[in-house]
Amino acid sequence: MTTVAHHDVLAAAARIGGFVLRTPVLEVSPGLFFKLELLQHSGSFKVRGAFNRILSAGELPADGVIAASGGNHGLAVAYAARELGVRAEIFVPEVTSPVKVAGLEALGAHITQTGAIYSEAAEAAAKRAAETGALTVHAYDQPEVLAGQGTTGLEIMEQTGGVDTVVVAVGGGGFAGGITVGTSAGDGAGPRVVAVEPERIPTLREALRAGEPVPVQVSGVGADALGATRLGGLAYEILSGPRVESVLVSDEAIVAARRTLWARHRVAAEPAGAAAYAAVLSGAYTPAAGERVAVVVCGSNTDPATLT
Amino acid sequence: MTTVAHHDVLAAAARIGGFVLRTPVLEVSPGLFFKLELLQHSGSFKVRGAFNRILSAGELPADGVIAASGGNHGLAVAYAARELGVRAEIFVPEVTSPVKVAGLEALGAHITQTGAIYSEAAEAAAKRAAETGALTVHAYDQPEVLAGQGTTGLEIMEQTGGVDTVVVAVGGGGFAGGITVGTSAGDGAGPRVVAVEPERIPTLREALRAGEPVPVQVSGVGADALGATRLGGLAYEILSGPRVESVLVSDEAIVAARRTLWARHRVAAEPAGAAAYAAVLSGAYTPAAGERVAVVVCGSNTDPATLT
Ligand SMILES: Cc1ncc(COP(=O)(O)O)c(C=O)c1O
Ligand SMILES: Cc1ncc(COP(=O)(O)O)c(C=O)c1O
Repeated sequence: MTTVAHHDVLAAAARIGGFVLRTPVLEVSPGLFFKLELLQHSGSFKVRGAFNRILSAGELPADGVIAASGGNHGLAVAYAARELGVRAEIFVPEVTSPVKVAGLEALGAHITQTGAIYSEAAEAAAKRAAETGALTVHAYDQPEVLAGQGTTGLEIMEQTGGVDTVVVAVGGGGFAGGITVGTSAGDGAGPRVVAVEPERIPTLREALRAGEPVPVQVSGVGADALGATRLGGLAYEILSGPRVESVLVSDEAIVAARRTLWARHRVAAEPAGAAAYAAVLSGAYTPAAGERVAVVVCGSNTDPATLT
Repeated sequence: MTTVAHHDVLAAAARIGGFVLRTPVLEVSPGLFFKLELLQHSGSFKVRGAFNRILSAGELPADGVIAASGGNHGLAVAYAARELGVRAEIFVPEVTSPVKVAGLEALGAHITQTGAIYSEAAEAAAKRAAETGALTVHAYDQPEVLAGQGTTGLEIMEQTGGVDTVVVAVGGGGFAGGITVGTSAGDGAGPRVVAVEPERIPTLREALRAGEPVPVQVSGVGADALGATRLGGLAYEILSGPRVESVLVSDEAIVAARRTLWARHRVAAEPAGAAAYAAVLSGAYTPAAGERVAVVVCGSNTDPATLT
């Protein structure tokens, strides 16, 4: 079985350290930390996995890279490709927001907008990759991608001096899976991981119920970033473990959290980026007295006019 | 002569530590740091000085606090008063926008809207303070206020591991003055302080030219936060020293820096909050190769719809 180990995350950190930001941590009240990963290059954590995947190949991919993404993953791959001087082809579904498409264009990527939802764009991308020999960078289900995302977890533990709980959003599960490994001490022990999904995109919840990843319906305010139709297999192996707690939040809770992040904290998150905080703010996850909690605020590719 | 010493800043840090955020530092490229003070409570550094002034009195002021400002200082004093459970009276001129008045009201302040311009509101506030015995909190020209703002400088040195240069915006000069003291080693030595002003509000530049604070014309995009009509006397004593370099930036450079802060870094600053970065981005201040530079991004009370 392919899996991702703690030493893979350490290796990823060494590999990508010169290319990604060590995003800051803000202690907003005693013991409550925001990991401000939305300040990352390209506006989300996704560059961590993208750089790690591309750089793991040893040589830079001569035929370029290819990715399918509802937005942030595409932006991240386009950013990484530009920084490394390789060609990027990005396939996006038609639901993708104009802000994100404009962002991809500005990064010099070759864009194909096709399919109603992510999985259709992904199929088109896979077909194209088979033709061109480009290196595919999956949005969440490749070991190098999970290991890259997991470097966020290493930083959380270093920057906070350790927490009891990490609260993180789940789409395909690469981020939460990587963070679960990255925050472990290496022996499997580590903080609780509260894996937060919109009620309307319960990929992890349904996978846990079924005993394996299964397709779910995708809708709601988080769909453009959390809208994977099923959990990744690698993520399932990790997120079905004992440290992980699955929590659902309503779209209303996500919208309220996003508003509060701006009004109270001047943090400009997109809906997916506010989902983890929504779990805490709405009480879907209630920390115990004295519990040290890191909430990952993970995406900012949004129109700021919608923050108020 | 009243002045502010390094030990005053250390005392302020101890006094206000439980009330203000230790805002994060982001290293955006090797040796270039953003001090993200715009994530501070109330959206600017002004709460540091406000808390230090109010808490320095020993006992909480029984007759409440009073300040004149429709902007960041007013918000900060109202926030500090609410947190400490004391009454706040804020005097704002009649031109103050309903949005700002609503913001102050939401913090529970008692607002008096009087006078056509700021200086008339300030006079009315002084008169009222003399009648009621309320503690006045000046926007920039009280030792406790400078010492409070200076705690930002302590944090910069700790969080970066030391820099050669700090770049900071100047209005009445309390912030830059406090930071100059806060970043010193205590013996007067310390990093260069690049004191940035809009060309259209050159309070420090004109004070240096005249050998004392003198009135200046106030206009331009930074006027709502940097629009003191003359430099404070305490600030002048500090900012006329050898570590300080005065730099002017155009309104266009401020607007461009604000746009870049959002587009590239997802930092949502108001114009005054982007002025320091404008000096670096426009080349008004050009760091040498290898120079370690902290740019203070200091205010976020802005309509996010205007970021793009
Ligand atoms: C901002 C944001 N948060 C969370 C996620 C979910 O990440 P994953 O698909 O790895 O679970 C994504 C995915 O694109 C995202 O863009
Ligand atoms: C965002 C911001 N930056 C800078 C300043 C200038 O501070 P000072 O008046 O202490 O020079 C102010 C003052 O209100 C401000 O609000």
